[in-house]
Amino acid sequence: MAGSSYGTLFRITTFGESHGSAIGGIVDGFPPGFELDFEFIQQELDRRKPGQSRIVSQRKESDRVQFLSGIFEGKTTGTPIGFLIPNEDAKSADYSHLEQGFRPSHADYTYQQKYGHRDHRGGGRSSARETATRVVAGALAKLYLHSHGIKIQAFTDQVGAIRLPESLIETLDWSDSESNAVRCPDPGYAAAMEQRILEVRKLGDTIGGCVRCRVTGVPAGLGEPVFDKLHAELGKAMLSINAAKGFEIGSGFEGVAQLGSQHNDIFNPDGTTQTNNSGGIQGGISNGMPIHFRTAFKPVATILQDQESINTAGEIITLGGKGRHDPCVVPRAVPIVEAMTAIVLLDFLLRNQTFKS
Amino acid sequence: MAGSSYGTLFRITTFGESHGSAIGGIVDGFPPGFELDFEFIQQELDRRKPGQSRIVSQRKESDRVQFLSGIFEGKTTGTPIGFLIPNEDAKSADYSHLEQGFRPSHADYTYQQKYGHRDHRGGGRSSARETATRVVAGALAKLYLHSHGIKIQAFTDQVGAIRLPESLIETLDWSDSESNAVRCPDPGYAAAMEQRILEVRKLGDTIGGCVRCRVTGVPAGLGEPVFDKLHAELGKAMLSINAAKGFEIGSGFEGVAQLGSQHNDIFNPDGTTQTNNSGGIQGGISNGMPIHFRTAFKPVATILQDQESINTAGEIITLGGKGRHDPCVVPRAVPIVEAMTAIVLLDFLLRNQTFKS
Amino acid sequence: MAGSSYGTLFRITTFGESHGSAIGGIVDGFPPGFELDFEFIQQELDRRKPGQSRIVSQRKESDRVQFLSGIFEGKTTGTPIGFLIPNEDAKSADYSHLEQGFRPSHADYTYQQKYGHRDHRGGGRSSARETATRVVAGALAKLYLHSHGIKIQAFTDQVGAIRLPESLIETLDWSDSESNAVRCPDPGYAAAMEQRILEVRKLGDTIGGCVRCRVTGVPAGLGEPVFDKLHAELGKAMLSINAAKGFEIGSGFEGVAQLGSQHNDIFNPDGTTQTNNSGGIQGGISNGMPIHFRTAFKPVATILQDQESINTAGEIITLGGKGRHDPCVVPRAVPIVEAMTAIVLLDFLLRNQTFKS
Amino acid sequence: MAGSSYGTLFRITTFGESHGSAIGGIVDGFPPGFELDFEFIQQELDRRKPGQSRIVSQRKESDRVQFLSGIFEGKTTGTPIGFLIPNEDAKSADYSHLEQGFRPSHADYTYQQKYGHRDHRGGGRSSARETATRVVAGALAKLYLHSHGIKIQAFTDQVGAIRLPESLIETLDWSDSESNAVRCPDPGYAAAMEQRILEVRKLGDTIGGCVRCRVTGVPAGLGEPVFDKLHAELGKAMLSINAAKGFEIGSGFEGVAQLGSQHNDIFNPDGTTQTNNSGGIQGGISNGMPIHFRTAFKPVATILQDQESINTAGEIITLGGKGRHDPCVVPRAVPIVEAMTAIVLLDFLLRNQTFKS
Repeated sequence: MAGSSYGTLFRITTFGESHGSAIGGIVDGFPPGFELDFEFIQQELDRRKPGQSRIVSQRKESDRVQFLSGIFEGKTTGTPIGFLIPNEDAKSADYSHLEQGFRPSHADYTYQQKYGHRDHRGGGRSSARETATRVVAGALAKLYLHSHGIKIQAFTDQVGAIRLPESLIETLDWSDSESNAVRCPDPGYAAAMEQRILEVRKLGDTIGGCVRCRVTGVPAGLGEPVFDKLHAELGKAMLSINAAKGFEIGSGFEGVAQLGSQHNDIFNPDGTTQTNNSGGIQGGISNGMPIHFRTAFKPVATILQDQESINTAGEIITLGGKGRHDPCVVPRAVPIVEAMTAIVLLDFLLRNQTFKS
Repeated sequence: MAGSSYGTLFRITTFGESHGSAIGGIVDGFPPGFELDFEFIQQELDRRKPGQSRIVSQRKESDRVQFLSGIFEGKTTGTPIGFLIPNEDAKSADYSHLEQGFRPSHADYTYQQKYGHRDHRGGGRSSARETATRVVAGALAKLYLHSHGIKIQAFTDQVGAIRLPESLIETLDWSDSESNAVRCPDPGYAAAMEQRILEVRKLGDTIGGCVRCRVTGVPAGLGEPVFDKLHAELGKAMLSINAAKGFEIGSGFEGVAQLGSQHNDIFNPDGTTQTNNSGGIQGGISNGMPIHFRTAFKPVATILQDQESINTAGEIITLGGKGRHDPCVVPRAVPIVEAMTAIVLLDFLLRNQTFKS
Repeated sequence: MAGSSYGTLFRITTFGESHGSAIGGIVDGFPPGFELDFEFIQQELDRRKPGQSRIVSQRKESDRVQFLSGIFEGKTTGTPIGFLIPNEDAKSADYSHLEQGFRPSHADYTYQQKYGHRDHRGGGRSSARETATRVVAGALAKLYLHSHGIKIQAFTDQVGAIRLPESLIETLDWSDSESNAVRCPDPGYAAAMEQRILEVRKLGDTIGGCVRCRVTGVPAGLGEPVFDKLHAELGKAMLSINAAKGFEIGSGFEGVAQLGSQHNDIFNPDGTTQTNNSGGIQGGISNGMPIHFRTAFKPVATILQDQESINTAGEIITLGGKGRHDPCVVPRAVPIVEAMTAIVLLDFLLRNQTFKS
Repeated sequence: MAGSSYGTLFRITTFGESHGSAIGGIVDGFPPGFELDFEFIQQELDRRKPGQSRIVSQRKESDRVQFLSGIFEGKTTGTPIGFLIPNEDAKSADYSHLEQGFRPSHADYTYQQKYGHRDHRGGGRSSARETATRVVAGALAKLYLHSHGIKIQAFTDQVGAIRLPESLIETLDWSDSESNAVRCPDPGYAAAMEQRILEVRKLGDTIGGCVRCRVTGVPAGLGEPVFDKLHAELGKAMLSINAAKGFEIGSGFEGVAQLGSQHNDIFNPDGTTQTNNSGGIQGGISNGMPIHFRTAFKPVATILQDQESINTAGEIITLGGKGRHDPCVVPRAVPIVEAMTAIVLLDFLLRNQTFKS
């Protein structure tokens, strides 16, 4: 019970189903006296919303956030920031066929098992619509981190089997990643990825991919061993995003084949390191180098093909593919990855602010 | 601050440095009236301890756990279980050369940055010695889970580039994994992995690898969306283990290349699924299928070769390779992975025990 | 930071200032499948709202709660219940004189010191308006507790120096307490208390009082020693209500003058006790007897008299008494005391639902 | 479950029964680099231990604390501080008569109801022996607070009906409170209180009392509304101490009879107040004035007289008065009140250390 809060000192709590009247949340612990850039917050929401390009869901949601508290004369007051995003295009009728049926690899079955009574419309609470509230909280956190020189940037580095080579990554201008629908900073790879997504959509199918995230300007010292290590919390935060199946920091899964003598990051005299296999975190604490990690997202479970499944009575049924869904979740996951990263970092930044005796 | 506790209803808190007088912990929230098998607990500790085979550290620690509270007449009382493991073979002199120097890819530098004052001997709090306390807490959790039909089994599925093929895994007798030093259930792969570790040790070097874990008998319904999803907490728990760099659940990173129509797990009439790409968790909640995931461990940072590094004054120094360390952490990580899995699952089991109205 | 959440498994998080557009909250961890009585919830809000009688503030707020999530077809789904109460009668102009001045014994000064930037209108976040959100969450909890036979009833037992004698309390019909504006179940005392409040109001002054609360039907076993003792959490919850200055359980402050031989509650063969000086809680755990405790509320700080004070520049100013406030907070505190009691009890009820091995 | 931890950033977790081999705890989140005064810590323990005067229990415990981690070269390292206090004088045989019987107004019955299986010896976990671990953690917190100019002093202000008049309190030299066994700073009242305790002891009976606590040097700004108000947490902490039945801050229960115009604390130009009915806390946040509060302790339940009671079979039995217990818990409660106060304040001090933007 009670799994809809995240964070210790900077804490977000969210509510809302895809087909209720609104979703929203409460951001508690945001530092006071901070002037908010509301346009930026809305832009972040727009980066996540459906309908923004031809490779994402065509569901229409204007996703306008309304702030209800915690802000006075444009500045934060240190008290909780309540906010709402009304649900507009909730066509409940679209989902009546799901009242009794469990969609494969969705949360329909597990919510039914856990709660007994559930809102079957559009996935209810398990819908990715919930992540819009994370983007709002994350945008607030980002603004604060920006003012302390911390910059978070994510991009698509894999769609299906098409993966941006490691060697290319250091040479990229990451700011290009917003210039295309797939959110990959390399134009050639971006085109290939977009092509693949369109092919898959034509099949009525879906495909997975990975998001890479890099954070610069992080001071050394963030993270609270032994359990609340910085990369452990980042991992939890990423894995809590819908459709996430994997997380790796620094050298990750591929680094296991290296020898220690290759993998070790040798120090420069100023405390920076010559390589960054550690991904900016050592012993669970940031070391001042850029933090970088990858998150894997499975192919979206909703497909536009008929699938065999079962209903609540355990009878075999055929589910027809309907609805307006994403052929690939990854482009829209980019701002969500950034948002959760910002939320984790701000919490650790505040947890690290202890007296030095 | 305060990162040494884990869990909500079943909560472990640990203390201790590698070279202090003892390490230990407090297990709070263990159900009352449960008869403990102390021999099993000690066996679990023995699976983790150094010196058990020629491919692990030769440091000598008998690792005898002493229980101080929470147990009466052999049964738990529901009150906190305090326990100690004395440190025996702490040769502090071995580490005097590290007082001023930062070992590459260790936590020396980040602890110095965060805390200012640190116990440099053997890594202090950041030493993997700390994980012995997790094994004790995990053994308690395992015993309870066993009595509810939940079984956790981990094994080594990759050392360096040698990886057990996915196709083999279903055919293995996992109980064989304890029959060899490397803890891989396939005798052929086990021999190759052990050979590789010995080669690497001869070079004075180290190598990484992966641990796979499978849990059977988990009831549907565990996990607390939207942030405390079951696989998100498992990910955090695994990533909090020393040297862990990656986590994947079910199809993980490789699943991203699949199409949704391939990846979706089709239901059988009884609610089980024909495939298990979900890894036993859908929407963050267990679905009753076996849970399976992998954790990546980097090559150990301590090598027996000279390395260039810096000291606290920012001067370049040469660190000579000394000490008694593991050429590959993976075999000893197997029981730690199991322990953290047990801790996470017991907490969720208790969190799920709400009234049904 | 982040002090606007309460509870572990049943957790409420609130937001909102007295003069923003709305206040509201999120109730997380409410058990699923429970049919809600919305009329009851509104009645509870009506018991707290201003303007309900001549002895309370005449501020007009219809206080209509809107539920936004977590409820489907009239039943809870186990997912977070988001709700809003719009602010209607927020006359910000009334408070312009407070922008620079600190009202004595209000939170103006301390919020300024803590946060630097604050919403001065009507006390902002420190306004008792915030307690309306507690009443909503408490009403939900009450409904659930009712269905398990747990009944919470509070009443006014002291206004100024007029205190209902202990000897009378056992003979009262507590259900009478809602029959008068002051919420005291004894008609004679109620009349005297109301008279006293009207006198004080005529002086432009305010007065304090006490609320007594009794809970019946509580099963033995609730409470989590050694820190989360049931009466310790009840104390925290009561003291978190605006204007609360004291809490006592069972025999409380007066019991200290007794001898142990008088104070001890002798058992009956069925485990009930002949007296109840313990107040239904022993060793921090409910014993199955009725829980009873008292909470002291100071005289409201806002008075309709001129007071000397200081402004943000540290200059002495005269604050004129204005606004529409309560001469005595106690009658309206009664439903808030009940609400917080329900919130605490439901959380402990859920925390107690562990497997028995 | 899991109620043996207290605090958010500065967190203590304790374990231990009165008749096990040891009690102890883990202090997590103590700031690093702080030089500890071990003699002071032991002195604090000595203030709590039994056998220190003729008016307290004659049980013999040397109560020597052993620190096991988190300290290096005499200074804290920022990692968890584990500690032990061995139990020495645990005469289990003394309690064999309690295996089946429930002592009136003890926790025997409620622990049996909650946990089913319990350590009946000397109250087990519910014994006040547990508070020794709080004194150790509190002594650490005190040392840190001292270094920031925060001073905590408690004393006995009531034994039975003998209460130090409010008017005397401002004129006392509080440092005199340690000069007598009863820990009351007024020699005349101290003598009368001690006389009363001796009379009661002669009767084989016990008596209650109150402890007053005052904290000076607290900066404005501590406390986290709306639930984690400073006085609400202080109340919880005090009420979590064995035998505590009531808590009041500032004017407390007596203040309810005042008018607002009398009760309001008028500001001086420097932000201090002319009176301190608020007890140093307004709106849940410290205002920089001394914090003062009182805690009521009931008469100890263990008396040296025969009492009627029941056993686990529900049969009526006679319990003979045995054992070595305190006729009045208040003198030994003084250092415990101080310890819990220090723990609460250090946690809030750390929670308040956020960036100011």
